[in-house]
Amino acid sequence: MSSGRFITLEGTEGVGKSTNLRFIESVLQQHQINYKLTREPGGTPMAEEVRELLLANRSEQVADDAELLLVFAARAQHLERVIRPTLETGSWVLCDRFTDATFAYQGGGRGLSKDMIAQLEAVVQRGLQPDLTILLDLPVEIGLARARERGELDRFENERLGFFERVREAYLDRANADPQRFAVIDASGTLEQVQQQISEVLECYLQKQGAACE
Amino acid sequence: MSSGRFITLEGTEGVGKSTNLRFIESVLQQHQINYKLTREPGGTPMAEEVRELLLANRSEQVADDAELLLVFAARAQHLERVIRPTLETGSWVLCDRFTDATFAYQGGGRGLSKDMIAQLEAVVQRGLQPDLTILLDLPVEIGLARARERGELDRFENERLGFFERVREAYLDRANADPQRFAVIDASGTLEQVQQQISEVLECYLQKQGAACE
Repeated sequence: MSSGRFITLEGTEGVGKSTNLRFIESVLQQHQINYKLTREPGGTPMAEEVRELLLANRSEQVADDAELLLVFAARAQHLERVIRPTLETGSWVLCDRFTDATFAYQGGGRGLSKDMIAQLEAVVQRGLQPDLTILLDLPVEIGLARARERGELDRFENERLGFFERVREAYLDRANADPQRFAVIDASGTLEQVQQQISEVLECYLQKQGAACE
Repeated sequence: MSSGRFITLEGTEGVGKSTNLRFIESVLQQHQINYKLTREPGGTPMAEEVRELLLANRSEQVADDAELLLVFAARAQHLERVIRPTLETGSWVLCDRFTDATFAYQGGGRGLSKDMIAQLEAVVQRGLQPDLTILLDLPVEIGLARARERGELDRFENERLGFFERVREAYLDRANADPQRFAVIDASGTLEQVQQQISEVLECYLQKQGAACE
């Protein structure tokens, strides 16, 4: 049985990840593709406990390297218990954020060494990469305004504007460096416009299985 | 103000770490040394939450690399929030287990790559090492029998005999590789005999501040 495909969805706060994740699911369902929906940090009971540790607003300041190691600890668990076994059955995996988010948030946002992140990536992923990454891109002010409308903010969403500017920039750098894997979606339009773009990307991917579109 | 000294206590299950930790404290107190007692994994509220994650008996099997990354995440936090700031005030730090335990349990016990552990050590410690490490050494059967008498066992204490044999061996390898830093104490004698040895090590260390004893 051939291995399933690994699709990740990325983007900063308020770009519409949740809504568009459901849309991606509906496209996979239309094509009768078996898939498992999961997320990072998290995706297993233990990794979800690590997620809670990471997102909690606490008086104790979290050291940048501690945060990075927690992210990769959760990822190692998620890979071993969920992502690899699922792909091996031939089922696809649709994951809400993955290592590109670490390069964006901990690398771009916090300024941690990209070499260090790449070293940890090599240790836990051992070469495994997403087959397709859909990046929802939006000017930071618009995204944050949308996130604030949703209510209470977690520890990351409370970061300042400059932080999210660096996160967005790091995401776009990742996409530019690997255009074969990334599809960058302009998330500033109407929901219909955004989903039209996502639909085109997915239909193209499903037809060509990883070959360049257009 | 000169930096404080960093003393660690190491050993496998049932070697008498808790009792002898109190004895080391009493010696430091007799010498009117300001010190902070702490432990790993843990030592800060967040790192203690990671400790709970690590020690919990759970149905989900924990991936070896996830465990290793959690250990170093807790350590990074402990170093930044407690160990480095304390040493910088001139106060000493007395720590119940540190990175030698990682080489022993995750390296020796679980068989994880020592190079990988050394890489993570370099990332989070940036050259900081204990000034003195007291290793309580005991044949594994005796230690485990003592630990069982104490009652319920955590996830590590439930490992099999061979695991602890490898842990002990890895501890002794570490000690042999760095005899200047390590003092190996034969913990199989009576409490008086053990504490006599510890007392000699500490008195010697206090007099000579790191020079080799005898």
